[in-house]
Amino acid sequence: MTALINVDLAKCYRLLNHGPTVLVTSASGGKQNVMAAAWAMPLDFDPPKMLVVIDKSTWSRELIEASGEFILNIPCRAQAAQVLKVGSSSGLQSDKFADSGLIAVAAQTMAAPRVAGCIGYLECKVINEPHNQQKYDLFIGEVVAAQADADVYSDGRWHFDGFDEKRSLHYISGGAFFSIGEQFNVE
Amino acid sequence: MTALINVDLAKCYRLLNHGPTVLVTSASGGKQNVMAAAWAMPLDFDPPKMLVVIDKSTWSRELIEASGEFILNIPCRAQAAQVLKVGSSSGLQSDKFADSGLIAVAAQTMAAPRVAGCIGYLECKVINEPHNQQKYDLFIGEVVAAQADADVYSDGRWHFDGFDEKRSLHYISGGAFFSIGEQFNVE
Repeated sequence: MTALINVDLAKCYRLLNHGPTVLVTSASGGKQNVMAAAWAMPLDFDPPKMLVVIDKSTWSRELIEASGEFILNIPCRAQAAQVLKVGSSSGLQSDKFADSGLIAVAAQTMAAPRVAGCIGYLECKVINEPHNQQKYDLFIGEVVAAQADADVYSDGRWHFDGFDEKRSLHYISGGAFFSIGEQFNVE
Repeated sequence: MTALINVDLAKCYRLLNHGPTVLVTSASGGKQNVMAAAWAMPLDFDPPKMLVVIDKSTWSRELIEASGEFILNIPCRAQAAQVLKVGSSSGLQSDKFADSGLIAVAAQTMAAPRVAGCIGYLECKVINEPHNQQKYDLFIGEVVAAQADADVYSDGRWHFDGFDEKRSLHYISGGAFFSIGEQFNVE
Protein backbone atom coordinates (compact mmCIF):
# COMPACT_ATOMS: atom_id res chain seq x y z
CA MET A 1 0.00 0.00 0.00
CA THR A 2 1.40 3.34 -1.04
CA ALA A 3 1.39 6.11 1.54
CA LEU A 4 0.31 9.55 0.36
CA ILE A 5 1.42 12.76 2.00
CA ASN A 6 -0.34 16.10 1.85
CA VAL A 7 1.49 18.68 -0.25
CA ASP A 8 1.47 22.32 0.90
CA LEU A 9 -0.73 24.10 -1.64
CA ALA A 10 1.64 27.07 -1.92
CA LYS A 11 4.34 24.68 -3.14
CA CYS A 12 2.24 22.20 -5.08
CA TYR A 13 3.50 23.70 -8.38
CA ARG A 14 6.58 21.58 -7.73
CA LEU A 15 4.62 18.47 -8.60
CA LEU A 16 4.44 19.68 -12.22
CA ASN A 17 7.46 21.99 -12.42
CA HIS A 18 9.64 19.42 -14.19
CA GLY A 19 7.10 18.83 -16.94
CA PRO A 20 5.61 15.36 -16.47
CA THR A 21 2.78 13.94 -18.57
CA VAL A 22 -0.48 13.71 -16.60
CA LEU A 23 -3.73 11.80 -16.54
CA VAL A 24 -6.78 14.05 -16.37
CA THR A 25 -9.77 12.59 -14.56
CA SER A 26 -13.29 13.97 -14.46
CA ALA A 27 -16.85 13.01 -13.52
CA SER A 28 -20.39 14.27 -13.96
CA GLY A 29 -23.85 12.75 -13.58
CA GLY A 30 -22.50 9.43 -12.37
CA LYS A 31 -20.12 9.06 -15.34
CA GLN A 32 -16.35 9.32 -15.12
CA ASN A 33 -13.42 9.37 -17.52
CA VAL A 34 -9.63 9.47 -17.73
CA MET A 35 -7.42 10.86 -20.51
CA ALA A 36 -3.70 11.44 -20.96
CA ALA A 37 -2.33 14.97 -21.43
CA ALA A 38 1.25 16.00 -22.12
CA TRP A 39 0.19 19.66 -22.14
CA ALA A 40 -0.24 20.60 -18.49
CA MET A 41 1.85 22.96 -16.36
CA PRO A 42 1.72 25.36 -13.41
CA LEU A 43 0.37 28.87 -13.97
CA ASP A 44 0.70 30.45 -10.52
CA PHE A 45 2.00 29.78 -7.02
CA ASP A 46 -0.48 31.00 -4.42
CA PRO A 47 -3.33 30.42 -4.78
CA PRO A 48 -1.95 27.65 -6.98
CA LYS A 49 -3.26 27.40 -10.49
CA MET A 50 -2.59 24.85 -13.22
CA LEU A 51 -3.10 24.90 -16.98
CA VAL A 52 -4.21 21.97 -19.10
CA VAL A 53 -5.26 21.67 -22.75
CA ILE A 54 -8.46 19.64 -23.21
CA ASP A 55 -9.57 19.19 -26.81
CA LYS A 56 -13.21 19.82 -27.78
CA SER A 57 -13.46 16.33 -29.27
CA THR A 58 -12.92 14.59 -25.93
CA TRP A 59 -15.57 13.27 -23.61
CA SER A 60 -13.50 14.57 -20.70
CA ARG A 61 -14.19 18.06 -22.01
CA GLU A 62 -17.94 17.56 -21.52
CA LEU A 63 -17.49 16.18 -18.02
CA ILE A 64 -15.14 19.01 -16.99
CA GLU A 65 -17.41 21.71 -18.37
CA ALA A 66 -20.44 20.15 -16.65
CA SER A 67 -18.76 19.66 -13.26
CA GLY A 68 -16.27 22.55 -13.16
CA GLU A 69 -13.67 20.16 -11.74
CA PHE A 70 -10.79 17.94 -12.81
CA ILE A 71 -7.84 16.14 -11.28
CA LEU A 72 -4.31 16.08 -12.65
CA ASN A 73 -2.93 12.67 -11.71
CA ILE A 74 0.82 12.20 -12.21
CA PRO A 75 1.44 8.67 -13.49
CA CYS A 76 4.73 6.80 -13.27
CA ARG A 77 6.81 4.46 -15.37
CA ALA A 78 5.01 1.37 -14.08
CA GLN A 79 1.83 2.76 -15.67
CA ALA A 80 3.23 3.73 -19.10
CA ALA A 81 1.29 1.14 -21.09
CA GLN A 82 -1.99 2.22 -19.48
CA VAL A 83 -1.17 5.89 -20.01
CA LEU A 84 -0.66 5.22 -23.71
CA LYS A 85 -3.94 3.31 -23.85
CA VAL A 86 -6.03 6.09 -22.31
CA GLY A 87 -4.22 8.59 -24.51
CA SER A 88 -5.28 6.88 -27.71
CA SER A 89 -8.95 5.95 -27.16
CA SER A 90 -12.14 7.84 -26.29
CA GLY A 91 -14.39 7.39 -23.29
CA LEU A 92 -17.34 8.02 -25.60
CA GLN A 93 -16.93 4.54 -27.04
CA SER A 94 -15.93 2.54 -23.99
CA ASP A 95 -15.04 2.55 -20.29
CA LYS A 96 -11.41 3.62 -20.33
CA PHE A 97 -10.80 2.53 -16.75
CA ALA A 98 -11.98 -0.99 -17.53
CA ASP A 99 -10.17 -1.09 -20.89
CA SER A 100 -6.83 0.14 -19.57
CA GLY A 101 -6.70 -1.60 -16.22
CA LEU A 102 -6.35 1.74 -14.45
CA ILE A 103 -8.31 1.79 -11.20
CA ALA A 104 -10.50 4.72 -10.13
CA VAL A 105 -10.40 5.59 -6.43
CA ALA A 106 -12.09 8.33 -4.44
CA ALA A 107 -10.64 11.83 -4.41
CA GLN A 108 -10.50 14.09 -1.34
CA THR A 109 -12.64 17.01 -2.47
CA MET A 110 -14.59 16.16 -5.61
CA ALA A 111 -16.57 13.54 -7.50
CA ALA A 112 -13.85 13.12 -10.14
CA PRO A 113 -11.87 9.97 -9.35
CA ARG A 114 -8.18 9.61 -8.78
CA VAL A 115 -6.17 7.00 -10.64
CA ALA A 116 -4.75 4.52 -8.14
CA GLY A 117 -0.98 4.12 -8.12
CA CYS A 118 -0.10 7.57 -9.42
CA ILE A 119 2.71 9.47 -7.71
CA GLY A 120 0.90 12.81 -7.37
CA TYR A 121 -2.58 14.31 -7.39
CA LEU A 122 -3.73 17.88 -7.97
CA GLU A 123 -7.48 18.34 -7.43
CA CYS A 124 -8.58 21.43 -9.37
CA LYS A 125 -11.65 23.66 -9.63
CA VAL A 126 -12.06 25.28 -13.03
CA ILE A 127 -11.58 29.05 -13.11
CA ASN A 128 -14.03 29.85 -15.84
CA GLU A 129 -12.40 31.58 -18.80
CA PRO A 130 -14.78 30.97 -21.71
CA HIS A 131 -12.57 32.67 -24.32
CA ASN A 132 -9.57 30.48 -23.51
CA GLN A 133 -11.70 27.37 -23.35
CA GLN A 134 -13.47 28.02 -26.66
CA LYS A 135 -10.62 29.46 -28.69
CA TYR A 136 -7.63 27.52 -27.34
CA ASP A 137 -9.08 24.47 -25.51
CA LEU A 138 -7.17 25.87 -22.55
CA PHE A 139 -8.41 25.32 -18.99
CA ILE A 140 -7.22 26.97 -15.79
CA GLY A 141 -7.75 25.10 -12.53
CA GLU A 142 -7.19 26.30 -8.99
CA VAL A 143 -5.70 23.51 -6.91
CA VAL A 144 -7.80 22.75 -3.82
CA ALA A 145 -6.02 19.60 -2.66
CA ALA A 146 -2.63 18.08 -3.45
CA GLN A 147 -1.00 14.82 -2.39
CA ALA A 148 2.04 12.84 -3.45
CA ASP A 149 3.55 9.39 -2.98
CA ALA A 150 5.73 9.45 0.15
CA ASP A 151 8.23 7.05 -1.46
CA VAL A 152 9.24 9.64 -4.07
CA TYR A 153 8.10 13.03 -2.69
CA SER A 154 9.25 14.50 0.61
CA ASP A 155 10.39 17.84 1.99
CA GLY A 156 8.75 19.58 -0.97
CA ARG A 157 10.79 17.70 -3.59
CA TRP A 158 10.70 14.68 -5.82
CA HIS A 159 13.32 12.04 -4.93
CA PHE A 160 13.22 9.19 -7.44
CA ASP A 161 16.50 7.44 -6.64
CA GLY A 162 15.85 3.80 -5.84
CA PHE A 163 12.31 3.96 -7.26
CA ASP A 164 12.79 3.67 -11.02
CA GLU A 165 9.30 2.30 -11.62
CA LYS A 166 7.89 5.39 -9.90
CA ARG A 167 9.77 7.91 -12.06
CA SER A 168 7.54 10.42 -13.81
CA LEU A 169 6.69 9.98 -17.49
CA HIS A 170 7.41 12.51 -20.22
CA TYR A 171 5.61 11.63 -23.42
CA ILE A 172 7.28 11.91 -26.82
CA SER A 173 4.95 10.43 -29.47
CA GLY A 174 4.06 7.11 -31.06
CA GLY A 175 4.22 5.11 -27.82
CA ALA A 176 7.63 6.49 -26.84
CA PHE A 177 8.27 8.03 -23.44
CA PHE A 178 11.14 9.38 -21.43
CA SER A 179 11.29 8.65 -17.72
CA ILE A 180 12.75 11.48 -15.70
CA GLY A 181 16.47 11.07 -15.16
CA GLU A 182 19.25 12.00 -12.82
CA GLN A 183 18.91 14.77 -10.25
CA PHE A 184 21.84 17.14 -9.80
CA ASN A 185 22.57 20.51 -8.23
CA VAL A 186 24.41 23.55 -9.51
CA GLU A 187 25.42 26.73 -7.75
CA MET B 1 30.42 23.48 -34.26
CA THR B 2 26.92 22.19 -33.65
CA ALA B 3 24.77 21.54 -36.69
CA LEU B 4 21.16 22.69 -36.50
CA ILE B 5 18.36 21.13 -38.51
CA ASN B 6 15.07 22.76 -39.43
CA VAL B 7 12.10 21.30 -37.58
CA ASP B 8 8.80 20.94 -39.45
CA LEU B 9 6.52 23.56 -37.86
CA ALA B 10 3.55 21.19 -37.71
CA LYS B 11 5.62 18.89 -35.47
CA CYS B 12 7.64 21.46 -33.55
CA TYR B 13 5.46 20.86 -30.45
CA ARG B 14 7.65 17.81 -29.98
CA LEU B 15 10.52 20.03 -28.91
CA LEU B 16 8.56 20.91 -25.73
CA ASN B 17 6.24 17.92 -25.39
CA HIS B 18 8.35 16.25 -22.71
CA GLY B 19 8.35 19.34 -20.49
CA PRO B 20 11.86 20.84 -20.52
CA THR B 21 12.81 24.10 -18.83
CA VAL B 22 13.47 26.87 -21.36
CA LEU B 23 15.38 30.12 -21.72
CA VAL B 24 13.23 32.97 -22.99
CA THR B 25 15.07 35.58 -25.06
CA SER B 26 13.75 38.93 -26.20
CA ALA B 27 14.92 42.25 -27.65
CA SER B 28 13.61 45.73 -28.25
CA GLY B 29 15.19 49.09 -29.03
CA GLY B 30 18.70 47.66 -29.19
CA LYS B 31 18.42 45.96 -25.78
CA GLN B 32 18.20 42.22 -25.24
CA ASN B 33 17.59 39.87 -22.35
CA VAL B 34 17.43 36.22 -21.35
CA MET B 35 15.47 34.58 -18.53
CA ALA B 36 14.79 31.02 -17.42
CA ALA B 37 11.23 29.65 -17.40
CA ALA B 38 10.05 26.26 -16.21
CA TRP B 39 6.48 27.14 -17.18
CA ALA B 40 6.34 26.76 -20.94
CA MET B 41 4.47 24.18 -23.03
CA PRO B 42 2.77 23.59 -26.36
CA LEU B 43 -0.77 24.88 -26.85
CA ASP B 44 -1.59 23.78 -30.40
CA PHE B 45 -0.21 21.79 -33.32
CA ASP B 46 -0.82 23.64 -36.60
CA PRO B 47 -0.30 26.52 -36.73
CA PRO B 48 1.93 25.73 -33.77
CA LYS B 49 1.42 27.76 -30.64
CA MET B 50 3.33 27.79 -27.36
CA LEU B 51 2.47 29.07 -23.88
CA VAL B 52 4.89 30.71 -21.49
CA VAL B 53 4.42 32.52 -18.17
CA ILE B 54 6.34 35.83 -17.99
CA ASP B 55 6.01 37.68 -14.70
CA LYS B 56 5.19 41.40 -14.69
CA SER B 57 8.29 42.11 -12.59
CA THR B 58 10.70 40.96 -15.28
CA TRP B 59 12.50 43.11 -17.81
CA SER B 60 11.85 40.41 -20.40
CA ARG B 61 8.17 41.24 -20.03
CA GLU B 62 8.77 44.80 -21.19
CA LEU B 63 10.87 43.68 -24.15
CA ILE B 64 8.32 41.07 -25.22
CA GLU B 65 5.38 43.46 -24.96
CA ALA B 66 7.31 46.11 -26.92
CA SER B 67 8.49 43.79 -29.70
CA GLY B 68 5.68 41.22 -29.86
CA GLU B 69 8.29 38.48 -30.17
CA PHE B 70 10.22 35.98 -28.07
CA ILE B 71 12.29 32.86 -28.52
CA LEU B 72 12.03 29.68 -26.46
CA ASN B 73 15.56 28.29 -26.33
CA ILE B 74 15.89 24.75 -24.96
CA PRO B 75 19.06 24.54 -22.87
CA CYS B 76 20.91 21.38 -21.99
CA ARG B 77 22.74 19.86 -19.05
CA ALA B 78 26.06 21.48 -20.00
CA GLN B 79 24.36 24.87 -19.45
CA ALA B 80 22.69 24.18 -16.09
CA ALA B 81 24.81 26.62 -14.06
CA GLN B 82 24.10 29.43 -16.53
CA VAL B 83 20.40 28.59 -16.61
CA LEU B 84 20.27 28.90 -12.84
CA LYS B 85 22.12 32.20 -13.01
CA VAL B 86 19.74 33.81 -15.50
CA GLY B 87 16.80 32.39 -13.56
CA SER B 88 17.82 34.18 -10.37
CA SER B 89 18.86 37.67 -11.49
CA SER B 90 17.22 40.53 -13.37
CA GLY B 91 18.31 42.11 -16.63
CA LEU B 92 17.21 45.44 -15.19
CA GLN B 93 20.31 45.50 -13.00
CA SER B 94 22.92 43.97 -15.28
CA ASP B 95 23.68 42.33 -18.63
CA LYS B 96 22.60 38.75 -18.03
CA PHE B 97 24.44 37.43 -21.08
CA ALA B 98 27.72 38.88 -19.85
CA ASP B 99 27.08 37.83 -16.24
CA SER B 100 26.14 34.25 -17.05
CA GLY B 101 28.55 33.50 -19.84
CA LEU B 102 25.67 32.63 -22.15
CA ILE B 103 26.33 33.87 -25.68
CA ALA B 104 23.71 35.64 -27.80
CA VAL B 105 23.65 34.75 -31.47
CA ALA B 106 21.41 35.87 -34.33
CA ALA B 107 17.98 34.30 -34.77
CA GLN B 108 16.43 33.43 -38.13
CA THR B 109 13.35 35.65 -38.14
CA MET B 110 13.51 38.25 -35.37
CA ALA B 111 15.69 40.67 -33.44
CA ALA B 112 15.52 38.61 -30.26
CA PRO B 113 18.75 36.63 -29.93
CA ARG B 114 19.19 32.91 -29.62
CA VAL B 115 21.33 31.44 -26.85
CA ALA B 116 24.30 29.64 -28.41
CA GLY B 117 24.66 25.96 -27.54
CA CYS B 118 21.01 25.24 -26.84
CA ILE B 119 19.50 22.05 -28.28
CA GLY B 120 16.32 23.62 -29.69
CA TYR B 121 14.87 26.97 -30.73
CA LEU B 122 11.27 28.07 -31.17
CA GLU B 123 10.95 31.60 -32.56
CA CYS B 124 7.53 32.96 -31.60
CA LYS B 125 5.30 35.91 -32.49
CA VAL B 126 3.01 36.97 -29.66
CA ILE B 127 -0.69 36.36 -30.26
CA ASN B 128 -2.03 39.31 -28.36
CA GLU B 129 -4.38 38.29 -25.55
CA PRO B 130 -4.39 41.23 -23.14
CA HIS B 131 -6.63 39.56 -20.54
CA ASN B 132 -4.33 36.53 -20.22
CA GLN B 133 -1.23 38.71 -20.17
CA GLN B 134 -2.57 41.08 -17.52
CA LYS B 135 -4.44 38.68 -15.27
CA TYR B 136 -2.26 35.56 -15.52
CA ASP B 137 1.12 36.72 -16.94
CA LEU B 138 0.38 34.18 -19.67
CA PHE B 139 1.68 34.66 -23.20
CA ILE B 140 0.74 32.77 -26.35
CA GLY B 141 3.26 32.67 -29.17
CA GLU B 142 2.85 31.33 -32.68
CA VAL B 143 6.00 29.55 -33.79
CA VAL B 144 7.40 30.98 -37.01
CA ALA B 145 10.73 29.13 -37.08
CA ALA B 146 12.04 26.03 -35.29
CA GLN B 147 15.43 24.35 -35.26
CA ALA B 148 17.12 21.68 -33.19
CA ASP B 149 20.59 20.24 -32.61
CA ALA B 150 21.17 17.46 -35.12
CA ASP B 151 23.16 15.45 -32.56
CA VAL B 152 20.07 14.92 -30.40
CA TYR B 153 17.07 15.60 -32.65
CA SER B 154 16.34 13.72 -35.88
CA ASP B 155 13.35 12.19 -37.64
CA GLY B 156 11.04 14.34 -35.54
CA ARG B 157 12.31 12.96 -32.21
CA TRP B 158 14.77 13.65 -29.46
CA HIS B 159 17.52 11.00 -29.19
CA PHE B 160 19.78 11.75 -26.24
CA ASP B 161 21.63 8.44 -25.94
CA GLY B 162 25.36 9.06 -26.07
CA PHE B 163 24.93 12.82 -25.49
CA ASP B 164 24.42 13.14 -21.74
CA GLU B 165 25.64 16.75 -21.64
CA LYS B 166 23.00 17.63 -24.24
CA ARG B 167 20.08 16.14 -22.30
CA SER B 168 17.24 18.59 -21.63
CA LEU B 169 16.90 20.21 -18.21
CA HIS B 170 13.83 19.98 -15.99
CA TYR B 171 14.02 22.44 -13.12
CA ILE B 172 13.00 21.51 -9.57
CA SER B 173 13.88 24.42 -7.23
CA GLY B 174 16.82 25.74 -5.23
CA GLY B 175 19.43 24.99 -7.85
CA ALA B 176 18.29 21.39 -8.35
CA PHE B 177 17.51 20.00 -11.79
CA PHE B 178 16.62 16.71 -13.37
CA SER B 179 18.12 15.82 -16.71
CA ILE B 180 15.78 13.85 -18.94
CA GLY B 181 16.26 10.12 -18.56
CA GLU B 182 15.84 6.87 -20.40
CA GLN B 183 13.70 6.57 -23.49
CA PHE B 184 11.47 3.52 -23.80
CA ASN B 185 8.51 2.32 -25.85
CA VAL B 186 5.25 0.67 -24.88
CA GLU B 187 2.49 -0.85 -27.02
